Amino acid sequence: MKSYRKELWFHTKNRIEFINITHQVEEALRDSGIKEGLCLVNPMHITASVFINDDERGLHEDYKKWLEENIPHNPELYKHNRTGETNGDAHIKRQVMGREVVVAVTDGELDFGPWEQIFYGEFDGRRKKRVLIKIIGE
Amino acid sequence: MKSYRKELWFHTKNRIEFINITHQVEEALRDSGIKEGLCLVNPMHITASVFINDDERGLHEDYKKWLEENIPHNPELYKHNRTGETNGDAHIKRQVMGREVVVAVTDGELDFGPWEQIFYGEFDGRRKKRVLIKIIGE
Amino acid sequence: MKSYRKELWFHTKNRIEFINITHQVEEALRDSGIKEGLCLVNPMHITASVFINDDERGLHEDYKKWLEENIPHNPELYKHNRTGETNGDAHIKRQVMGREVVVAVTDGELDFGPWEQIFYGEFDGRRKKRVLIKIIGE
Repeated sequence: MKSYRKELWFHTKNRIEFINITHQVEEALRDSGIKEGLCLVNPMHITASVFINDDERGLHEDYKKWLEENIPHNPELYKHNRTGETNGDAHIKRQVMGREVVVAVTDGELDFGPWEQIFYGEFDGRRKKRVLIKIIGE
Repeated sequence: MKSYRKELWFHTKNRIEFINITHQVEEALRDSGIKEGLCLVNPMHITASVFINDDERGLHEDYKKWLEENIPHNPELYKHNRTGETNGDAHIKRQVMGREVVVAVTDGELDFGPWEQIFYGEFDGRRKKRVLIKIIGE
Repeated sequence: MKSYRKELWFHTKNRIEFINITHQVEEALRDSGIKEGLCLVNPMHITASVFINDDERGLHEDYKKWLEENIPHNPELYKHNRTGETNGDAHIKRQVMGREVVVAVTDGELDFGPWEQIFYGEFDGRRKKRVLIKIIGE
């Protein structure tokens, strides 16, 4: 069994931002030399998500609007912010959008349907954060 | 290390539908000959989920009602639908219900508690869609 | 390829409770002898979650408050409860918080960022329930 590990670094300009990282994960997979296996991609932080969906600007606006309507940023609303943070909402947003994705690796490629793209979902940005790629297989 | 791959195809009658695919995944696992490992099951589409919960009709109605109340289908509400689609809601519903499941394989069986069942969750049906099963192990 | 399996048992005092199980998963990883691989942690029940977030009391109160406001316990609201259950809400809460986590194993450690902690999330407690840890790798 082979294993491969890589970190990606991000520092977003906005508090909430979605970044397509599919090509970076594909590059890591090529570097790994793994042909059959599983590829895990997760943020190493608890106010961010890695998720798979469509690379369509309108949809990303819809995600932001829905999340903000259902989990408002307003720091007054969250007990977590008594610690001095202002990101209580981001911890909830990340749970709803999910932490990680696991992708099948087949014939040396991410085994995706036609519209699947991997995104880094930042909910408390403007600081340096990491994503972990871990691939195991043969 | 062994690996095994299979696609399941679905074409639902309804826009939203939940289909128990546990037996099909168990059959794939038997075909794979893998006794110890991990089994990934995911839709190859971005308006559908694979999730694990109870095979109980009332609960499935509760899921549909909760999702519709919190993420209404009304196509007017979503910028994504300016692309000509009417499925903006389905992209959000799928995130809330989750994309994939990873199931432990032990002694050649899905290592499940008594009530765990695997479902294909369709949120924008009436068209052909695929689920991917990928199993790795020995 | 090595594989390792362990069950953890819980019996919470409260209906909803979050328990930090990071040390128990680390202990299982050491027992496994696996240095590189993937570690799956999931409840074997369908009204509970395993999730990764912060070990901060205020945040946990925020999760409970948000979940209760958005998915109220009131048993009258759910068709599932016609079966005699009172936990319709718990099945929805678990979907929103997620079922399982998959964690990278690197150099014999859970490959975590600084704040990542693993929690058992109980939404219908006061009974015995299990969490499954399955680790594969080398």
